[in-house]
Amino acid sequence: MYVELANEFGNYVELTETELTTILSKFKPITVVKNEVLLAKGSVSRYLYFVQKGCLRSFYLQDNGQEATRLIAFEQTFCSALSSFITQKPTNEYLQALEDSHLLMIHKSDFDALLAEICSFERFYRQRLENAQVVNTWRLESLLSMTAKKRYEHLLQYEPRIIQRLPNKIVASYLGITQESLSRLKAGK
Amino acid sequence: MYVELANEFGNYVELTETELTTILSKFKPITVVKNEVLLAKGSVSRYLYFVQKGCLRSFYLQDNGQEATRLIAFEQTFCSALSSFITQKPTNEYLQALEDSHLLMIHKSDFDALLAEICSFERFYRQRLENAQVVNTWRLESLLSMTAKKRYEHLLQYEPRIIQRLPNKIVASYLGITQESLSRLKAGK
Repeated sequence: MYVELANEFGNYVELTETELTTILSKFKPITVVKNEVLLAKGSVSRYLYFVQKGCLRSFYLQDNGQEATRLIAFEQTFCSALSSFITQKPTNEYLQALEDSHLLMIHKSDFDALLAEICSFERFYRQRLENAQVVNTWRLESLLSMTAKKRYEHLLQYEPRIIQRLPNKIVASYLGITQESLSRLKAGK
Repeated sequence: MYVELANEFGNYVELTETELTTILSKFKPITVVKNEVLLAKGSVSRYLYFVQKGCLRSFYLQDNGQEATRLIAFEQTFCSALSSFITQKPTNEYLQALEDSHLLMIHKSDFDALLAEICSFERFYRQRLENAQVVNTWRLESLLSMTAKKRYEHLLQYEPRIIQRLPNKIVASYLGITQESLSRLKAGK
């Protein structure tokens, strides 16, 4: 039951069988279709999702109607409007499935209870937060200090799945460039 | 001894007197002067700093010689090239004092030992990582989806100290705009 999720925990921390069973029992399966919005701006993020199959993204809708993608989560990754999940304040983000997806979701109250009860669960979460810090810093660095061309090359080197698997519209909104610029970069111009 | 640091822990988690004494004993005081660089690109970040007095920033040096400021840390805040501190791989950032500063620093090996030994220390660190996640997401949102004017107004609302206390050059490099644009925004044009 929930083999991928159990493996994800097992890869990082040691858990007793009772602890693992307790943790897994708090997750519930959910199926979403391509383009389905799981969370809209103004709502509070009450769930953390684990992607078993498919792909989620978080994005902002700008005043001019343009979308700006903050995060893309493929299989074997957790995803949420995490700031809102942490603070329980309304989010500015949208959370959307980019493909038909199978997810496992846990409610904030269950999540907090596990943090208080199981030290290794807190350790696991701490390590995932460290990973998020590394990813966010990399994103900030690329947006603050790189040209569009370098940002594209960087992405191709470190997370090629985004470019290979997703439509140009999403990739461009992730890189903060127009689709025309992306087409030129893809053509090596 | 280290009253501000002890308060910082006390504000977030419960520690026994022995635990607190153990934690504080791993920090060492250091004084740095304005503009001093504590860590340069290509080095591994071995220390986490707590700002008792003064101000630190982390920044990237772009190919064209321009600086891009990622993070500014005032009093009662921890600061490091955190990705490198986490991964122990070389950083792309510079860490610099923006004012004469009094810091307390802890070595990565002592930090890791405390994480393994004291569950409440891990909880504290987890909560600081959550806070970093909120700040980073806010930074990403502002860079990805806001105009320069809106970024400036946002900063004025949520972290006015940056604008009030630091020179225009630093503020502009934090907002990702030119000093001329910043002057216009400050003049309300």
